[in-house]
Amino acid sequence: MREKIKRVAITGGTHGNEFTGVYLIKKWQQHPNLIQRSTFETIALQTNVEAFKQVRRYIDRDLNRAFKSDDLYNDELTRHEDLLAKEINTLLGPKGESSKNVDFIVDLHTTTANMGQSIVLSNESELTLQIVSYLASKEPDLKVYRWKGDEEDAFVDSIANHGFAIEVGPVPQGVLRADKFLQTENLVYHILDYLDRYNEGDVQFSDTLEIYDHICLVDYPRDTEGDILAMVHPERQDRDFDLIKPGDPLFLTLDGETIVYEREKPLHGLFINEAAYYEKGFALCLAEKRIVSLK
Amino acid sequence: MREKIKRVAITGGTHGNEFTGVYLIKKWQQHPNLIQRSTFETIALQTNVEAFKQVRRYIDRDLNRAFKSDDLYNDELTRHEDLLAKEINTLLGPKGESSKNVDFIVDLHTTTANMGQSIVLSNESELTLQIVSYLASKEPDLKVYRWKGDEEDAFVDSIANHGFAIEVGPVPQGVLRADKFLQTENLVYHILDYLDRYNEGDVQFSDTLEIYDHICLVDYPRDTEGDILAMVHPERQDRDFDLIKPGDPLFLTLDGETIVYEREKPLHGLFINEAAYYEKGFALCLAEKRIVSLK
Repeated sequence: MREKIKRVAITGGTHGNEFTGVYLIKKWQQHPNLIQRSTFETIALQTNVEAFKQVRRYIDRDLNRAFKSDDLYNDELTRHEDLLAKEINTLLGPKGESSKNVDFIVDLHTTTANMGQSIVLSNESELTLQIVSYLASKEPDLKVYRWKGDEEDAFVDSIANHGFAIEVGPVPQGVLRADKFLQTENLVYHILDYLDRYNEGDVQFSDTLEIYDHICLVDYPRDTEGDILAMVHPERQDRDFDLIKPGDPLFLTLDGETIVYEREKPLHGLFINEAAYYEKGFALCLAEKRIVSLK
Repeated sequence: MREKIKRVAITGGTHGNEFTGVYLIKKWQQHPNLIQRSTFETIALQTNVEAFKQVRRYIDRDLNRAFKSDDLYNDELTRHEDLLAKEINTLLGPKGESSKNVDFIVDLHTTTANMGQSIVLSNESELTLQIVSYLASKEPDLKVYRWKGDEEDAFVDSIANHGFAIEVGPVPQGVLRADKFLQTENLVYHILDYLDRYNEGDVQFSDTLEIYDHICLVDYPRDTEGDILAMVHPERQDRDFDLIKPGDPLFLTLDGETIVYEREKPLHGLFINEAAYYEKGFALCLAEKRIVSLK
């Protein structure tokens, strides 16, 4: 018999300038009944309060890259987000232990890219894939990105056995948009409803799941000092998840020259022109569409 | 005979996380010929380099509210932007003196609101209004906002005899969008072309100019600690410059309750849900449409 889910954590504000999660957490802390279900307990946690106060992604380092096991158990790391990650790991994990405080984590994010309603997946547990497949059945325009971006196994949700991040965009940093707030809230309620039915043995999910599987990152053209020399091409901007074919315009230099996609294989562009990724060194992610079997 | 324009300044990056102006200035510093015209000199100046490096609107205070005469000549003000404002005033002004280093300033901004191509006007010199009217004739969707927002006579462009700010949006903070970059660049070239013809006595402008005249600011509903309790209503979001009528939805509380517009007089909403204005305490500006005569 499958193991039941006992505790679920909804985390938000992991990036302090992504407001959707922050205000959903505030709402649920005031109205916990909205996220309680009969078969498990739900915790709502605003993870980086100080970064939100300063309307910044982070204070010292990206909290959503701070959950590698090596970092969590390294006593020499004492920056703001190092300490936060250790606290969160104690509260919701611990990562790597067989007995954990929560079984499932959904971490709420926004993006400035036109990602719509999307899931960033770095955990491939059976239950995780089932829930994502259920969400896709409820929200047909939902897209799923299997992340192997700049860092692996370093997300908040990596400390539980099951979970993923929700990304809903486009939303500017430091802005609360009602439409995206409502979409994200709706996805969370679907997750909780599914987990409740899962605990009662009443599960429904598709045999397969369509995902966008990470292939590589593409940086902006830059000068020797690291400053960008080109922008995402107007014909590429806002076209997240579309297929990019050889010869398609990719960048437009400040001087007006078009730089085209030169890889042989067509791939899908994701997180196109996301504000937070300028400093990480990528203008977009390239991914391949794949069908994953769930049974 | 009218006085000729001798020097023009194009300023950008006054807010460090508004990238359009920063990269246009970089472009023009590399290719100064693009902004030179035969009858006057043009300077391109990135005004707040440190804020751009930190991808923040400002370090200590909003630079585009730091140009009040009282502040510029107050030796006790020594924060980052106080000192910057004084430097810029020395370089381009000085404000209040009859002889100034530049005659015209156009300051380049972006907004997260759906303001399209717009002009924020706080100077009503004859030449300023002529140029704006010329821009409106060249770009029929251009809108003009006569600003009396949170602070008056405190903008960068207030230190010259003529000038205004350009706001093109929506663009998230910390993002360079090619479409908005090209629109802003095009507006600047129209301005320079007009000034060149003005100096040669060959001017064309309409008799009248349609403007949105500031009436008041409307804040988000907030709790006693100042945190917002509601979002801009999905039916109001992105509808900058549209008329808001009594009973129209204005906000949606986090709990799902609609708050409507209750003023008797219909007014136009501007800068709706602009990221930078959360801390300033307003969710939108209300304005009345007026026709200004230019002759």
